[in-house]
Amino acid sequence: MSVARGGRLPGAVDAAMARLNTSVDIDCELWREDIMGSIAHARGLALAHVITEEEAAELVRGLTEVAGEIERGEFAWDPAREDVHMNIEARLTELCGPVGGKLHTGRSRNDQIATDLRLYARRRGRETVAAITELGSAILGQAEAELDTVMPAYTHLQRGQPSRLSHHLMAWQEMLWRDRQRLEDAITRLNECPLGAGAVAGTGFPLAREAVAEMLEFARPMRNSIDATASRDFLMEVASTLAILGVHLSRIGEELVLWSSQEFGFVNLADTFTTSSSMMPQKKNPDVAELVRGKSALAIGAATALLVLEKSLCLGYGRDLQEDKRPIFDAFDGALVCLRALTGAIATARFSRERMRAALDRGHLCATDLADFLVGKGTPFRAAHHAVGGLVRLAEERGVELGELPADELGAVHPSLGDPEVRRVLDPAQAVDRRGLLGGPARSRVVEAIAAARRAWSADGS
Amino acid sequence: MSVARGGRLPGAVDAAMARLNTSVDIDCELWREDIMGSIAHARGLALAHVITEEEAAELVRGLTEVAGEIERGEFAWDPAREDVHMNIEARLTELCGPVGGKLHTGRSRNDQIATDLRLYARRRGRETVAAITELGSAILGQAEAELDTVMPAYTHLQRGQPSRLSHHLMAWQEMLWRDRQRLEDAITRLNECPLGAGAVAGTGFPLAREAVAEMLEFARPMRNSIDATASRDFLMEVASTLAILGVHLSRIGEELVLWSSQEFGFVNLADTFTTSSSMMPQKKNPDVAELVRGKSALAIGAATALLVLEKSLCLGYGRDLQEDKRPIFDAFDGALVCLRALTGAIATARFSRERMRAALDRGHLCATDLADFLVGKGTPFRAAHHAVGGLVRLAEERGVELGELPADELGAVHPSLGDPEVRRVLDPAQAVDRRGLLGGPARSRVVEAIAAARRAWSADGS
Amino acid sequence: MSVARGGRLPGAVDAAMARLNTSVDIDCELWREDIMGSIAHARGLALAHVITEEEAAELVRGLTEVAGEIERGEFAWDPAREDVHMNIEARLTELCGPVGGKLHTGRSRNDQIATDLRLYARRRGRETVAAITELGSAILGQAEAELDTVMPAYTHLQRGQPSRLSHHLMAWQEMLWRDRQRLEDAITRLNECPLGAGAVAGTGFPLAREAVAEMLEFARPMRNSIDATASRDFLMEVASTLAILGVHLSRIGEELVLWSSQEFGFVNLADTFTTSSSMMPQKKNPDVAELVRGKSALAIGAATALLVLEKSLCLGYGRDLQEDKRPIFDAFDGALVCLRALTGAIATARFSRERMRAALDRGHLCATDLADFLVGKGTPFRAAHHAVGGLVRLAEERGVELGELPADELGAVHPSLGDPEVRRVLDPAQAVDRRGLLGGPARSRVVEAIAAARRAWSADGS
Amino acid sequence: MSVARGGRLPGAVDAAMARLNTSVDIDCELWREDIMGSIAHARGLALAHVITEEEAAELVRGLTEVAGEIERGEFAWDPAREDVHMNIEARLTELCGPVGGKLHTGRSRNDQIATDLRLYARRRGRETVAAITELGSAILGQAEAELDTVMPAYTHLQRGQPSRLSHHLMAWQEMLWRDRQRLEDAITRLNECPLGAGAVAGTGFPLAREAVAEMLEFARPMRNSIDATASRDFLMEVASTLAILGVHLSRIGEELVLWSSQEFGFVNLADTFTTSSSMMPQKKNPDVAELVRGKSALAIGAATALLVLEKSLCLGYGRDLQEDKRPIFDAFDGALVCLRALTGAIATARFSRERMRAALDRGHLCATDLADFLVGKGTPFRAAHHAVGGLVRLAEERGVELGELPADELGAVHPSLGDPEVRRVLDPAQAVDRRGLLGGPARSRVVEAIAAARRAWSADGS
Repeated sequence: MSVARGGRLPGAVDAAMARLNTSVDIDCELWREDIMGSIAHARGLALAHVITEEEAAELVRGLTEVAGEIERGEFAWDPAREDVHMNIEARLTELCGPVGGKLHTGRSRNDQIATDLRLYARRRGRETVAAITELGSAILGQAEAELDTVMPAYTHLQRGQPSRLSHHLMAWQEMLWRDRQRLEDAITRLNECPLGAGAVAGTGFPLAREAVAEMLEFARPMRNSIDATASRDFLMEVASTLAILGVHLSRIGEELVLWSSQEFGFVNLADTFTTSSSMMPQKKNPDVAELVRGKSALAIGAATALLVLEKSLCLGYGRDLQEDKRPIFDAFDGALVCLRALTGAIATARFSRERMRAALDRGHLCATDLADFLVGKGTPFRAAHHAVGGLVRLAEERGVELGELPADELGAVHPSLGDPEVRRVLDPAQAVDRRGLLGGPARSRVVEAIAAARRAWSADGS
Repeated sequence: MSVARGGRLPGAVDAAMARLNTSVDIDCELWREDIMGSIAHARGLALAHVITEEEAAELVRGLTEVAGEIERGEFAWDPAREDVHMNIEARLTELCGPVGGKLHTGRSRNDQIATDLRLYARRRGRETVAAITELGSAILGQAEAELDTVMPAYTHLQRGQPSRLSHHLMAWQEMLWRDRQRLEDAITRLNECPLGAGAVAGTGFPLAREAVAEMLEFARPMRNSIDATASRDFLMEVASTLAILGVHLSRIGEELVLWSSQEFGFVNLADTFTTSSSMMPQKKNPDVAELVRGKSALAIGAATALLVLEKSLCLGYGRDLQEDKRPIFDAFDGALVCLRALTGAIATARFSRERMRAALDRGHLCATDLADFLVGKGTPFRAAHHAVGGLVRLAEERGVELGELPADELGAVHPSLGDPEVRRVLDPAQAVDRRGLLGGPARSRVVEAIAAARRAWSADGS
Repeated sequence: MSVARGGRLPGAVDAAMARLNTSVDIDCELWREDIMGSIAHARGLALAHVITEEEAAELVRGLTEVAGEIERGEFAWDPAREDVHMNIEARLTELCGPVGGKLHTGRSRNDQIATDLRLYARRRGRETVAAITELGSAILGQAEAELDTVMPAYTHLQRGQPSRLSHHLMAWQEMLWRDRQRLEDAITRLNECPLGAGAVAGTGFPLAREAVAEMLEFARPMRNSIDATASRDFLMEVASTLAILGVHLSRIGEELVLWSSQEFGFVNLADTFTTSSSMMPQKKNPDVAELVRGKSALAIGAATALLVLEKSLCLGYGRDLQEDKRPIFDAFDGALVCLRALTGAIATARFSRERMRAALDRGHLCATDLADFLVGKGTPFRAAHHAVGGLVRLAEERGVELGELPADELGAVHPSLGDPEVRRVLDPAQAVDRRGLLGGPARSRVVEAIAAARRAWSADGS
Repeated sequence: MSVARGGRLPGAVDAAMARLNTSVDIDCELWREDIMGSIAHARGLALAHVITEEEAAELVRGLTEVAGEIERGEFAWDPAREDVHMNIEARLTELCGPVGGKLHTGRSRNDQIATDLRLYARRRGRETVAAITELGSAILGQAEAELDTVMPAYTHLQRGQPSRLSHHLMAWQEMLWRDRQRLEDAITRLNECPLGAGAVAGTGFPLAREAVAEMLEFARPMRNSIDATASRDFLMEVASTLAILGVHLSRIGEELVLWSSQEFGFVNLADTFTTSSSMMPQKKNPDVAELVRGKSALAIGAATALLVLEKSLCLGYGRDLQEDKRPIFDAFDGALVCLRALTGAIATARFSRERMRAALDRGHLCATDLADFLVGKGTPFRAAHHAVGGLVRLAEERGVELGELPADELGAVHPSLGDPEVRRVLDPAQAVDRRGLLGGPARSRVVEAIAAARRAWSADGS
């Protein structure tokens, strides 16, 4: 029976209630943070002269021993002890005797779990920042390798303008860069120490809050005990950030699925990132990309769940908050497994330069360039756009490309269009490098962008 | 290595991909359904003369043996075999030899998993219907026991009109009744058999689809092979239904938390459904009700996740769908654990008749009755409402109840209010039974409602 | 100032509060239902002898006049009167004098708005059922017209097995069929009358609840006054149903976008359902399909919002419920505009039979058939699958299709593969009709399916 | 007909499509930003010598005139012109003649709308920061006024430990402080200029991107044209941030509703922030707080919708993105109206010092202090907690408070408990100030916290 029921509720809980109440199968994930926090608390108690230095040393020794047992898989988690905190405290007391009962002085599970969750979010957040950086690096590698691969830029999944693969990959990279920044902001904001807040209104013991915060590498103690124990906006923020990251990974996944289709044929994923079918022997499916899309749906569900969970709680701590663990654990696990698999898949992907290049040939991709050419000859853009649109319509009816219309028909629309220069305007390869402004797909601009990104990503994250 | 990679992808997957790709740690939950479906498929193959009766018998024997191993905890789930289907097929082949390789004839994991999920949703759905019924029954029990407990009916958490506890409990019961009906509708709708749909476009083998559907107690085979393998609206519907149920359980939980507060003091939950604090020795917290509210947030997250997951998938099956399992498993687990714990908590709760009765005394609960009394004397309701509102304002300024205003001040507003009958109008106990129309809180109406509900709930669910 | 503040709160609300409090800009959408409900209530008051027949007639006359004013755009909605109910009641009293003040006898805005919302959901629900039916019919029309258009069935967006366009369209139709059923179930469940429930605990007037319910064509009065005023599960259910419908429409939209790409080239939407670009003159974008996907995201947001809104409310009515209107109005509006636009877009779409047929030629689409052929020769399926997978691998390395491998190489894998019959097995056109089991893409099966669907859809909906 | 259809699609859209396609009824909200962006673009075209200075001046003059017409309500929005951009461009051309057709040179609606949305989010974001600051200030004002109001701190809605109202209010303030920081981070991150990105791959005109960015007070141009037009993570981040803010406002609202109940009686909201009932004349309901909770549900729905909307889009711009406006507009409108109404409601609220003080008297609020006292006497905390828990159980059985147990029964548990000092330990007023550590409710700590918060909030936001 859980020691937390104490003398007030000496009996055990109802069996159906026990199944609802016990959380150790999930929150045992926090054991490292729980022990780290307890060690700091024990040392803090000694600093505040609430326990002796010897008692603190004994507690630290015991906690270290418990950590070793867990690490080695020798620890027997007991559902009857409810949660990670009580499992560890109970084992500590078995190992140390009555001094174990001094660890929880001036502390509550409410400030303890808030501390554990912040340590956890900080650790997993930093792992995620590193994994985003790895993926960014893999993308930059391909952007460098495919610098001369031209392809259409699409809007509405219709071919729009001539572009290059590196430019497209750099768009992926921009999204991920912001994802990293967002996560770093969230980590900075959550890096405060709840310990000392007690159950809700602090404690009468003169705890050394700054010192304990420092031991745990928090930037500072939290400033209000009620807020410290009742607030979970750090989880909502992290989960939202991971959901946005998930959306970006899903968009990358969507493109990989599309590009892997026989119809596009733009990319060939390595066999090691694909699977076959149990029925259709010919299949090689882009599962890595589909699973990433799928996990992203779950990340949105997790962010939603955490927002809903907190929405109507009055202060301070309410037991509803037990349910915040599964969503945040799943969100981090999902993000990390997706980032790592996608990093490998992208690094090993082979792009079909031929198929991409060939896609420039149909779709009147230089229609904008033709309108711009007319602008250069003095036609207002809107009129030029209208004229070229009419030509496209004509070409479509004939089943030809814009450039395949006879010169006299072009000239009939506007004298300048009879100009032989028009053929050059309609050459997609030249059209890519014409887009030489900042942020455009011209080779020199993309080279600059890659170099700048390399510098940014390799700077220290936090 | 998974046999599903076959000859097309002879190598293993990348390690990071394996962590993303393997699902057996989650989908092993479906082993019963998977084996049940395979047994029916094997028998169906024999009926269609694709395999012999002896081969079918051998497969059924082997599958039964695998089921026994799993049941007894002797089965070694192998992550390298990817999922529940391939783990079971591989073990079957170890047990039966090459005939094991005949089981998957005319079948794909795509129709197989769709079948497993429908069988699973049907089984868990029926368990949930039964658990809702248990909770409904516990509520009816309290409604009978507390028939004479009067209390205010609240709106905006302000005391509104005189009512009785049983009437309030019967409102909970009405919500749950619709939850049960909604779930039964969903179960009826999903009870169709995908087997025979193959990967996406059926199979060339003349499978006995009707017979197989019947063996599995499905109402019929699904009518379109692409739909059968690609659609998961049955999961979205079930998850939405469980989310709505969760909202209702959360509302009940909200009221139990509120009523357990020292300020309300309307209910005292049994010790076995509460917990104490690790720091504050006096605490007895209504954890059962808070955890129910918390789980409901996760149910909303699960429904959202499933909607998002499906939203942009083109047909047929996409691997994103692997991720549909965790949300639906969690949604059912959460619903069942909440229903069962809440059933016990409500059955054992003690309501404070005194506190509830006492709450009728302040809040001018019969102000509506007073306005209605004026209506009886010929005043249009809107004018009567205005007049009584003014009296309440006066009473509030004096710090008294409406009935404590002197008769002459009442009479000054309207001559009828000087009438001694007015005291009777302002008696909350009489006011409850004055509300004797259908659906109202008068004793006789509530007695009728309880009897009708008893009959309805005890009728067979599906 | 709103008459609802009455004598209790004689002053006006704060200006910032007014902006939060006023809802008439949104809930005026409910004016028809509000007046319909008030007419029934007035008649019911007379039936119960609470007002005279003459007073009821006067109220009905006045309400009818108000309805005319609104219909003709002559009604001046006044934000200071808060909501649709008070705007109409105030105008009624202007028109009828003091008798207008009798309309609200035995009624509260709480049962009034619940009635309005149920009438609204029933009306819009039926419109949506009709619009789903129209879309289903448009799809059936194309399924009939394209009966002989063969195409690959895809899984994972990879070509999987030979199929036909009609079979694919019939999968869309199956989804919509269940959407219609789900919505009909929801409409049936919500078709109960809250009037008479009052604010929360009914009323002392002996209202004729059954008669009023019948006037409004409800199946019955609601059975519990607290439930009647506090519950909104009918909105959660309808919104979830519309979200699932949205997911299906989004999936259809996804395919139309994909099929409209130059790479697929499977469909050509009519110009009237597409738009161009403001910059790129050549563009013809499948906007109809993209907008449908976009609206579906909002439908998911609306369903989530309604679940969250209700989640933590204690009974009875709370003002949070004012916010239920925008999500449900948006959800219905979105569904209807999408259904109608998609109906037109599909009816006028031209499918490219050549491109679809050509897509069968690459992707080893008959690999399953080849494995099945080996099964027919006695090879267990799993071994056959493995062998054919190896052949595909070989073909891929050579850059040829399975059927282009020389007979001797085929024969080396298994003697039967040298058989000339193998060429027939590998013919996609024959392979489609080989899938002749129930639910498969063989021509005869699809003809049957279309005929059955025609019958089902034309049966009366509700 | 929209000029954007150009020569490519000379006809109008289908009527049902028009209803789906037209967005001007919603996106006209962006007119200020659209005109501001167009003025900068026109000037930039001149800087780049694409048009002349005179043409630019003419365009700016025309755009300013259009702005004036809109401001004065004289502008006729035309649904046939689709959206805000085309309405303004068309009117500009009416006013300026053909030069109007030069405005869109080197620009697309894709970079234009991305610019508008960033300008909009920046403006509304800053308004929201200011409104958060106002609310923070109102809370600080009450925290100062109620410095000596003691009350229980609650966990699980059960009385936990002695605290003070100011300390509680400062917890609200902490949440809002982080909300402000989060929003400022989001505004900083989104403050980049998409103009020049064109439809997706930039433009061949040598636009002055840095100069244009500077005119619009953006920190810099965006670095990748595809990302600039296809990404909406800034909206997802802002919406998530507003959803978290909404959760915090909802929690404050939850407490105001609770505290307004007759049972708690802790607060009395001003009449100007409450409403009455249309049926029950006595009602004064805390509508402001309930509506804030309700709006928060919609904010969660909006954040979810935006995540879903983007999730599966391939790059670049897709028309789905038209649907991003309603959710973000609603989210900002909801946040602002809630912040402003809540600011007034809190500033004018009257707290009942007596009811709060009285709530300290029951609930054994000093049980933790008693256990801590035993710790001071050498008992390990866990043992002390158990012993005090047993005493509470005894007191509950007797129906008395812990401090009302006879001294000899206390002493029987532990000799120190017979000590007269124990009475002091059990005095709630002293217990509050005993919690004097950083972050605790002792008077001096709260005074410090208020002063620090005053300094922080008054520092310039961005």
